[in-house]
Amino acid sequence: MKTIQDLKVVGTNARRVDAVEKVSGKAIYTSDIQLPGMAHARILRSPVAHARLVKVDASKVKELPGVIATLTRDDIQGFNFKYGATYKDQSIVATDKVRYVGDPVAAVLADTPEIAEAALELFEVEYDELPKVTNLEEALAPGAVQVHEGGVARAELRGSTYGAPERFSGSNICYYLTFAREEAEKGFAKADHIFEDTFRFQKVQHFSLEAHNNVAYYDGEKLTVWASCQDPFTLRDHLSGIFKLPCNRIRVIVPYVGGGYGGKLYVKAEPISAALSWMTRRPVKLQLSINESFKTVTRHPARVTVKTGVTKDGKLIARDCQVYMDTGAYADAGPRVTQKAGYRALGPYKIPYAKVEAHGVYSNTVPAGAFRGFGALQVTWAYESQMDMIADRLGLDPLEFRVKNLLKKGDLYTKGDTPVDCDLEEGLRKVADAIKWTEKSDKPNRAKGLSCCIKDAGGTYKVAGATVKMSSDGSVMLLTGTVEAGQGPRTALSQIVAEELAMPMDQIGVAQLDTDVTPYDISTSASSSTVVMGTAVQRASQDAKKQLLQCAAKVLKEKADTLTLKDGQVCTQSGQSLSFSKVIVDFFGSKAGEIIGKGLYKDKRSAKAVLGSTTTFWEVGWGGAEVEVDPETGRVELLNYVSACDAGKAINPEQCVGQDEGAVMFGIGHTLMEEMIYEDGQLLNGNMVDYRVPTFQDLPAGLHTILIENGNGPGPFGSKGIGEGGLLPVASAIANAVSRAVGVRIQDLPLTPPKIWRAIQAKG
Amino acid sequence: MKTIQDLKVVGTNARRVDAVEKVSGKAIYTSDIQLPGMAHARILRSPVAHARLVKVDASKVKELPGVIATLTRDDIQGFNFKYGATYKDQSIVATDKVRYVGDPVAAVLADTPEIAEAALELFEVEYDELPKVTNLEEALAPGAVQVHEGGVARAELRGSTYGAPERFSGSNICYYLTFAREEAEKGFAKADHIFEDTFRFQKVQHFSLEAHNNVAYYDGEKLTVWASCQDPFTLRDHLSGIFKLPCNRIRVIVPYVGGGYGGKLYVKAEPISAALSWMTRRPVKLQLSINESFKTVTRHPARVTVKTGVTKDGKLIARDCQVYMDTGAYADAGPRVTQKAGYRALGPYKIPYAKVEAHGVYSNTVPAGAFRGFGALQVTWAYESQMDMIADRLGLDPLEFRVKNLLKKGDLYTKGDTPVDCDLEEGLRKVADAIKWTEKSDKPNRAKGLSCCIKDAGGTYKVAGATVKMSSDGSVMLLTGTVEAGQGPRTALSQIVAEELAMPMDQIGVAQLDTDVTPYDISTSASSSTVVMGTAVQRASQDAKKQLLQCAAKVLKEKADTLTLKDGQVCTQSGQSLSFSKVIVDFFGSKAGEIIGKGLYKDKRSAKAVLGSTTTFWEVGWGGAEVEVDPETGRVELLNYVSACDAGKAINPEQCVGQDEGAVMFGIGHTLMEEMIYEDGQLLNGNMVDYRVPTFQDLPAGLHTILIENGNGPGPFGSKGIGEGGLLPVASAIANAVSRAVGVRIQDLPLTPPKIWRAIQAKG
Repeated sequence: MKTIQDLKVVGTNARRVDAVEKVSGKAIYTSDIQLPGMAHARILRSPVAHARLVKVDASKVKELPGVIATLTRDDIQGFNFKYGATYKDQSIVATDKVRYVGDPVAAVLADTPEIAEAALELFEVEYDELPKVTNLEEALAPGAVQVHEGGVARAELRGSTYGAPERFSGSNICYYLTFAREEAEKGFAKADHIFEDTFRFQKVQHFSLEAHNNVAYYDGEKLTVWASCQDPFTLRDHLSGIFKLPCNRIRVIVPYVGGGYGGKLYVKAEPISAALSWMTRRPVKLQLSINESFKTVTRHPARVTVKTGVTKDGKLIARDCQVYMDTGAYADAGPRVTQKAGYRALGPYKIPYAKVEAHGVYSNTVPAGAFRGFGALQVTWAYESQMDMIADRLGLDPLEFRVKNLLKKGDLYTKGDTPVDCDLEEGLRKVADAIKWTEKSDKPNRAKGLSCCIKDAGGTYKVAGATVKMSSDGSVMLLTGTVEAGQGPRTALSQIVAEELAMPMDQIGVAQLDTDVTPYDISTSASSSTVVMGTAVQRASQDAKKQLLQCAAKVLKEKADTLTLKDGQVCTQSGQSLSFSKVIVDFFGSKAGEIIGKGLYKDKRSAKAVLGSTTTFWEVGWGGAEVEVDPETGRVELLNYVSACDAGKAINPEQCVGQDEGAVMFGIGHTLMEEMIYEDGQLLNGNMVDYRVPTFQDLPAGLHTILIENGNGPGPFGSKGIGEGGLLPVASAIANAVSRAVGVRIQDLPLTPPKIWRAIQAKG
Repeated sequence: MKTIQDLKVVGTNARRVDAVEKVSGKAIYTSDIQLPGMAHARILRSPVAHARLVKVDASKVKELPGVIATLTRDDIQGFNFKYGATYKDQSIVATDKVRYVGDPVAAVLADTPEIAEAALELFEVEYDELPKVTNLEEALAPGAVQVHEGGVARAELRGSTYGAPERFSGSNICYYLTFAREEAEKGFAKADHIFEDTFRFQKVQHFSLEAHNNVAYYDGEKLTVWASCQDPFTLRDHLSGIFKLPCNRIRVIVPYVGGGYGGKLYVKAEPISAALSWMTRRPVKLQLSINESFKTVTRHPARVTVKTGVTKDGKLIARDCQVYMDTGAYADAGPRVTQKAGYRALGPYKIPYAKVEAHGVYSNTVPAGAFRGFGALQVTWAYESQMDMIADRLGLDPLEFRVKNLLKKGDLYTKGDTPVDCDLEEGLRKVADAIKWTEKSDKPNRAKGLSCCIKDAGGTYKVAGATVKMSSDGSVMLLTGTVEAGQGPRTALSQIVAEELAMPMDQIGVAQLDTDVTPYDISTSASSSTVVMGTAVQRASQDAKKQLLQCAAKVLKEKADTLTLKDGQVCTQSGQSLSFSKVIVDFFGSKAGEIIGKGLYKDKRSAKAVLGSTTTFWEVGWGGAEVEVDPETGRVELLNYVSACDAGKAINPEQCVGQDEGAVMFGIGHTLMEEMIYEDGQLLNGNMVDYRVPTFQDLPAGLHTILIENGNGPGPFGSKGIGEGGLLPVASAIANAVSRAVGVRIQDLPLTPPKIWRAIQAKG
């Protein structure tokens, strides 16, 4: 076992392996794929939020020169056209009803994108409008119209039972989770103070620079799909179900992905292009616009009510969390997100008596699915805002109030789960020190805020395989199902190979991700790549190393366990050394053969754990913000932001800092500006002009990440996953700072100037 | 271990897995590859057979609109531009000399193939012509001009020492092999009769329907090549040397190949397109014409002198073979082909005293390289013609004369090699019976001829890997480096997987061949795919089966060794059964994960064997022909042909018969019509009109293959390789029949009407 001190490549800022390709514009994304005979698809989307579909007539469309085919509800009956990440409540195109503005009604395939676009005008569709519910309040109102009448097919998946109990039938509640530590009511009985506050999180979009797109080609034997997606194997499995093909007849290839953030998990528009290709045997490109991303998937708007009991000595004793997540018109990953939101609602604190109820709710809005943080954002916003509100009400210092209540390393979040694997106080104090918590801001309307958030990370029911393939020149190809969406896994995973095999980075390549040949991986999600895939890659490297040493032992007539690897050489104890290439060539008797190492990661299942599988590692976000609020306009200027990031062991420190800074920037968006605004069921700002995301100008002058490396992670070399943690505390840290700066507490995101200005005015 | 009786899929005529794709025109060949920004290359070829290159000026070419780049000797100095299958005697384009008509002098890259074609006219090249040698006689004449002055770099490869001894220096002999059984002169001293005859084999071309072509793209980081080739890994290794890139930065992808026959082994035009892409960073397509195939690679013309000593009781006692192989202007695989020709020159007979000398000779003609039969054709033509000549001279029946002298199963061909693994007499008698040997042909000028030939098969220094990847729905992808060139390995290998895993064929797919991800395979050659790759595939399947049973054992709480596979199910002894999919899903706890089985084949090396590695199996060709010769025209009509084919165990009998029939048809070509005709160094008939290959009209009315299945092969289920054996006896069986029909003995192929007519006239 290598000690951290021995590491040669891991822990260095190795150059990104995709750097040259990306800087030179040579990197291939799905939109670059061109195939001979390729045609172009466009989707006709519902202009109304909720309606029965009376008529869908494509006959005029088909008359337009250049139109190859159309796809309506009449064309999908031969497929298993119902699908969905958790429930089969979605269909390739609408059949009986449309359920949100943007719901796919039909599609057209044409020789050019322009013809396809023009052809959409020629569909004749009649809608019989229905009452609609476009937010949680409307959806949960007694007697509200049901988005899905008569219940939906609800699958029992991956150990957890999805679906809502019988008492919710007839309502829009489609998922429900409850769990408790000790009986919450007993805890409230013991509390000296009880506070109940409600917080809201708005609907936001992932805003990947690369929109959803894919190319699908069914040649009559095999369906090949190039997709900008995060989980090609899961996509393959869904397509297998829809098109009734075994997996050996579906191939999903993932080129570089231009941002995912959860928005490219599960099935999106791929069944539409695949169905059109099935009908025509033509390669079909379906390139959505950014505007259509807003009509494809979003983050769940949420209402979270936190009721907290505190003892007079400032200890948290009881908590009740009521979580409502608006999953939009189709469940997508909503049940899973709601489940995780529920599980994560209690925060990083020792609260002996606690209860959570989490509800997934349908509405007539764009479906909400997986999104960086996966339910944690909504609940961390709530509980870390409330922590400051309680401290304020009780006259406590928010830092010390938190520290007093934090879980300790080794404490259990819930029974049956992995104990907390890091020192929460250490990170919080580091952030507080860096933001100079004890020093009062030096100008009026300025103040600081803190936040500390925790999430179970690495994903549930994770399976990942990897292969390391060493050629007879000693160079290596790594086969991994992890998607490179800009977050840098190809580099980090190559560093793990380089470290284990004591070889240079430039001798390691990463193969194209192709479900036909790449070992299975469940998904690139949940900050898992370094720990989950990293472990598979490390095991594959170790397997290759073992075989290489066995070959060398035969060639050198030495015992394998006396040999070591160094700088691309196998070394004997007597000082002899042989290059990897020479070992392989001598073993195979010519410049032939290769060594193939395999690695597999499979996470631990436990019936005792609330979610059925234990937490891979705990991802923590610690944030400290300093703001200045302009009381005349309500505008918040973020002056400084400090994030602490527990990487366990940073495989590539610079990339870790980049990921963490990116997470903070991401958080600034939904904290200060991002919000999908609906009016009468219509989304008003779903485009690149009206929907505001942070630019570099919105970054604080001081932005600093503290990397914490205690080697406490379960991943290779003690590493932990990162990438979501930095995002979690941003909103609450900033809101807490705003409150301390100008004395107003905003409980509904985002913290826009009008909202703050009005609050300041109301306070008087 | 399964007995032959238990087999469910192996031994059946399973439908070709590529049938639908090919029949529907959906199958992708290299010429179908299109890439964004792709440009087109053409090659300027030498119009003279031997000359110093005085000037190569591309300046006018570059002025032509649409020309992107030119490639001359000035552009290749940064590469290791010298390469070659055995010797590095070839260069990307000519530098100092041109050595045959067609030698690449320069290349051009343009926006369209038409512009590239037109641009060739604008190169200004000056040649200073040299004396030339265009056949063996000229090349071997004392004082002949040297095709390669000062010797060539001669590599020592794969255990055998290539290169000619010092005494040949200054000559055109570039390779020499000699070996003996017992001292031949002693044998001749004991002989009662000694016969010495010389035979010639003409220069022929592979005539693949798909010419050589490739697409190369170097993006500054990685060189990707789509190639119509038979050995992508070997091509990758050569390109690695030329372009100084490690193997992880070279990716060779092989789509379907439209015929190879050895002509697509090693490096052909790929370095030209790769160099152009290197210069321009554009994808480069280089599509040769069939006419250019004639300027790329051919079969070796040969002169073989066989001196045979026979005792008075008709036993062969001594043989001396002098083999001269014309390898053309560059060695290509010529040394290896000459080596094999030499090794195979003794034939299937027990001849205690024997000696062979084989010589590879340069000439100013198109390079000769690997070609179906790999040196065996030239020597079998000689020794099986001579067998009938001897029988005729001694008044013996050619069948009984052969039978008396045949090696028996278990006999050694040479010391240290694998013993003969089949019953040679059985096959010969079966052919004789089928052709009704003992019945005289019923019309004048009709007669029958026999031939029996043997070759060591499976290739030398073979290494092959395979992977079987079973998804959670139980379907399988097979990763194999065997090239599908029409010969059917995808089907046969899939049948082996289906048999081992007791699953249906339609649940098995074969992945795209891609050196980045496919396990290493040395080449698709030497009738090796069933035995060599088949063994790797069988082992991979067995490895997958073992893992599947281990997973099932955990799921079912049974012992793995009590479980069996049947019809896609794992079965317990108590009659319970679980689908493969259920086993995997239950083992991984969700529809996730997969099983990956690995298999490797590595042949046996032996210092005692003449060629350094022992013969994988013996491939035998038995042929019987019945002809009618028109004495007025000399035209030979092939009436009936019977071939016996020892498949050991036919994995797919129909495909075996197809392969064998194809081999016979192939042989009819060089026997009766095919010949590349040179005049003054210029090839006169290198095109599809003037070069005659057999059509279906040239097939005999009676064409019959006898499949012999004794389970005596080393491959899966007792299989042996086939595909070359059927080709070997065709020419000699037909020539022997011609001789018996009209009493003329032609010793120089092909048996054209003028040649036979003249011989009949000469006989008077």
